[in-house]
Parts: sequence; structure tokens; C-alpha cells
Amino acid sequence: MPTEFEFIRNLKEKYGLNRVGDDCAVLPKDSKADLVITADMLVEDIDFRLKWTTPEHIGHKALAVSLSDIAAMGGTPKWAILSIAVPAEVWDGGFVDRFYEGWFKLAQQHNVELVGGDVSRSPAKIVIDSILGGETVKGHAVLRSGARPGDSIFVTGSVGGAAGALELLESGVSYAESRGKKRRLLERQLCPTPQIEAGQHLSSRKLASAMIDISDGLGADLYHICDSSGVGAVIDLDAIPVDEDLDSFSIVEKRAFAIGGGEDFELLFTSKREKIIGQKLPLIHRIGVVTANVGIVELVTDDSRSLLPRIGYRHF
Amino acid sequence: MPTEFEFIRNLKEKYGLNRVGDDCAVLPKDSKADLVITADMLVEDIDFRLKWTTPEHIGHKALAVSLSDIAAMGGTPKWAILSIAVPAEVWDGGFVDRFYEGWFKLAQQHNVELVGGDVSRSPAKIVIDSILGGETVKGHAVLRSGARPGDSIFVTGSVGGAAGALELLESGVSYAESRGKKRRLLERQLCPTPQIEAGQHLSSRKLASAMIDISDGLGADLYHICDSSGVGAVIDLDAIPVDEDLDSFSIVEKRAFAIGGGEDFELLFTSKREKIIGQKLPLIHRIGVVTANVGIVELVTDDSRSLLPRIGYRHF
Repeated sequence: MPTEFEFIRNLKEKYGLNRVGDDCAVLPKDSKADLVITADMLVEDIDFRLKWTTPEHIGHKALAVSLSDIAAMGGTPKWAILSIAVPAEVWDGGFVDRFYEGWFKLAQQHNVELVGGDVSRSPAKIVIDSILGGETVKGHAVLRSGARPGDSIFVTGSVGGAAGALELLESGVSYAESRGKKRRLLERQLCPTPQIEAGQHLSSRKLASAMIDISDGLGADLYHICDSSGVGAVIDLDAIPVDEDLDSFSIVEKRAFAIGGGEDFELLFTSKREKIIGQKLPLIHRIGVVTANVGIVELVTDDSRSLLPRIGYRHF
Repeated sequence: MPTEFEFIRNLKEKYGLNRVGDDCAVLPKDSKADLVITADMLVEDIDFRLKWTTPEHIGHKALAVSLSDIAAMGGTPKWAILSIAVPAEVWDGGFVDRFYEGWFKLAQQHNVELVGGDVSRSPAKIVIDSILGGETVKGHAVLRSGARPGDSIFVTGSVGGAAGALELLESGVSYAESRGKKRRLLERQLCPTPQIEAGQHLSSRKLASAMIDISDGLGADLYHICDSSGVGAVIDLDAIPVDEDLDSFSIVEKRAFAIGGGEDFELLFTSKREKIIGQKLPLIHRIGVVTANVGIVELVTDDSRSLLPRIGYRHF
């Protein structure tokens, strides 16, 4: 059987789907703006576990993952359609009220208006459907396909924290009882912060040639950019900004989280180096360069050079 | 616990959600058009059963329910985002290929372009997420809230067939072995036809004062219009166009299917009677009038008069 990436690639070829395959669909709106629209489905026990988190955090995360897709296009979020299907016993437990509280708290921070949606019954697991619409300046949406050899590769903030948090949760660490670094790590997984402002800054000034949000993992998402752009990349392993709250883990674990883990919801983008110097951006790091070595991503240090395996999260 | 209708009403009040509560969200697009957007989530064993239908029919229906929401606003469908989460064993069985075939066949009939979506894993049941966007002439989207006392009430096509089909399926009738009337009935349930052209005709000429598609059932959907418009209604029971393929059922069963059953995906709309006469519309029937008797729907025949109970399908 094909993986889901192969399946979607086959579907695109079979039906000639030119617009599928970015973080958002881009549609013409009016003479000044384009629409960017994303849909995310979150399924209990795949995308979240009730025993690890709170209803408010699930509401927050349902919106945050969609905000991050809008951020990856350089868009400004505008409106949302939110649907949730829950089993009867979850409905009776008051989950849905607290879920919406978490959702609205984040929505109000980003001036997102809820314009539709539904609440319904699910036979077994909670299923959440988050649709978010936004706008970019016309023609300014940043696609995955614009990276060119010679561009520098940048990442916002730090990476690996969300995957480290998952490891803590799986080992039995409880959010309610956590403090300090552990709590900050868990919050990277349970209530992530989308990089809306950085995305807007990059798109409005046409600074980025390609962009994606880190949801599958830095390595897998870099391959998405390389595959869409028909390029390769060389990454300086020591330049990757690993989350500082991971300091109780070994260097091998930290690198695995930073490159192979997902859900950091930072932005990974390419640009001419000179365009970025002097820009008032949130913390960013230059981690490598785009090459003409199509489909090949290499990891280098001062004394080593290796091929990055395609190890991102796959459902099938 | 509140029902889901009460919960959504409470949510609208608490967060001041003025746009929630119609078949589609209506958003400004440009100087000539408005956007209409709908999201439908279909969950296995709630919205469909694998043993009753085919993957192609499920693909068809996933789009048809969303097309019907666009039809209810008088919109022209344009683009879709489609996501599906399936258990591993369903993925391995080739379900997803056949599902997309059914979806694309209907999409091509309506010139709908797939612009995004995802394929992922579900722990137990198939979950489908269908988002559909369309357009209306600016200011022409037909809401549920415009019905006024004295307006006539119309319904397209015929009703009750989808509920009758559900009864057949529950009694063990197989689609694969069905013929003639039974097969036509089953197709009303398994691969319904959205009333796009009728909706477009009514909205483009501003003929309808309020409109909804019949998904919860004629009775429940009429109450939705009455509640949104702050009106009541009197329905002539003998004027309701009951599906002719239901003739093996008793008159009591037929009326229960026609009024209480859902998923006919016909259009229920209100209009001044004189506006509709002479219009080149598909088959429609005038079934009653809007009254000032707020929140009260009465069913009358030549010799009886009764209150229509609020019996539409509720998830909780």
C-alpha cells in the first residue's frame, strides 16, 4: 500500500490538482487580497490524549495548528468554522464548554471570528474539525515551491521541545503536577504558539522564497520544501536551535527531537541572506543553504557529513 | 445536559456570534460577490454504515451534503477541501481510492475544484471532513431569517424517500440486490442529488425570502426557519409531495418519513406566491403559509388541525 504522501501525490497527478499541497489553499479574493484557507482534523488518541491534557488546551491547540498553517503562508487569520463530534459520556462531562473556552481565548488574541460549525455525536472518539480562513496581500502568499539554490534556510524560535514533551508525557509526567522547565516543555506540546507575526512580516515584504510550518518535524518539512521546489539542502547540525528546556536529555536525543520530532509550529523558510539582515523579526536562526542537489538533504558539522533520512511522521 | 441546538444557541449568545446558524457562513468577497462556505463532518456509524453502501456512494454523499448547503444559500459551488481519516485496515482495503472516485464524479458535474485536504489515520472509525466554498451575487445569499407572515412555503421535488430508504436498509434490504422502486429509494439515501440549480435561480432573482435544505427533516427544518425568522407556519398536510416510490408504506409511515425523516436534501423556501408563478423552476410544491404565530407550526387537512411536534433528528 502507498503511504499517505504517495497517495496524495498520485491523486494530484490523476485529477490534475494544481492547488493541493501547501499549508493552505490560496484562492483569489479581490483586487488587493488573496484568501488562504486551511482545514485540520484532530482525532482523539491520534492527535491528542484526554489523560495528558485539558479540554482548554485541546481547544487552544485545535486553533493553533490552523493558525500555524495561515502563518506558514504569511497570512492574517480572519474567520473560522469549528466542528466537534464527541461521544455521549464526554458531552455529559462538560468537556465541550471548556474546549470552546480554550478555543475562544486564542481566537480573541488573533481577532478570529467564528462564523460557522457544528456540535454532534461521535460513536467512540472525539473528532475536531478546524477550518481557518485568512488573507494575504495579493500574490504575496509564500508557497513551499519557491526555494532556489543559494538561498539560506532559516527557522524561527527553537525546535525539539514538542517532541521532548511527548516523551515526558509517555513516561508518565503529569501536566498538572509539572513545574519550571518541564512545564514549559509540556506547554510546547499541549498549547503551542503559532508564529503569525513572523509569517506576516516575511510575506508582506516578500522576504521569504519558500515557507512551511514545522508540524511533521524539521527534517520532514525541509524535505517537503525541497520536493516542492525541486532543490536540495545542506544543514549545519550545530546551528539548529534546540529547545533549551531539553537540557536533561542527551545530545543524541535532543537532535532526534529537533530534527525528527514534529509539532513545534515554528516557521521554516528560505531567503537570500542579505534580505533578512537588519529585519525586525522575532528570534531566527540560519541553519543551512539550499542546493541544486535535487531531493538530497545533508547534515554537516565541522568534521562530519551525512544524508538526512526522510523520517517525518507518517500515518501509514 | 443541553441538546446540541441549545448548546450552540448558548454559545452564540455568550460569544456574540452573529454569523453562525445558517447553512453556510456568508463572508464578503469583492464588490460583486459574497463567499458562502460550509463544513460537514461525516462519521462512520453515525452518518453512514459501510455494510449498507459503497465507497463511491460515500464519496458522492460527502460532497452532496455540502453542495446542498451551498444550494440552500442560492450559491454556485467553486472549490473544496476534503480530508479523510481511516483505520489502517480500511486503508489497506482500497476504500480511499474508490471514495475519491465517487467524490470526483460529482465534483466534475458541478465544476468544483479540490484545492486542499489530507489523508490520515483514525483509531477506529472513518471520519470525513468536507469543506465547500461557493459564491453568490453580492447581498443575494438567502438566509433562514427572512420569512415574513403571508409568505407562501414551498418545497422542491419530493420528501420522505431518504427516510424510507433508511427503514429498508435497517430491515436488511441490500443495495446491490435492489431493483426498481426500492433501488431508487435507496439512492435517495445513499447518493442524494443537491438542488443547486433551483437554489441559484431563486437567489439570483431574489425570489426567496428564506431558505434551508432539508437535512434534519421537513418539520425540524421548517422550525429552523420559523425560529430564525421569528414567525410561525401552517402546513397543508395533503400538499406535501411525498416520494412516490414509498407506495408500499402506509399513509401514516409515509407522513412520518416526509415530515420527520431527514436527508432528502430538497430545498424548503418561503416567497410571495405571485413571485414564483411563471418561474422556470424545477418541480416545486406550495405546502403552506407563514404566520405571525411565533414558533408555532400547525398541520392542517380539510377536517383536522394539529401542532407539529419538534421531532427533528438530535444528536444528544
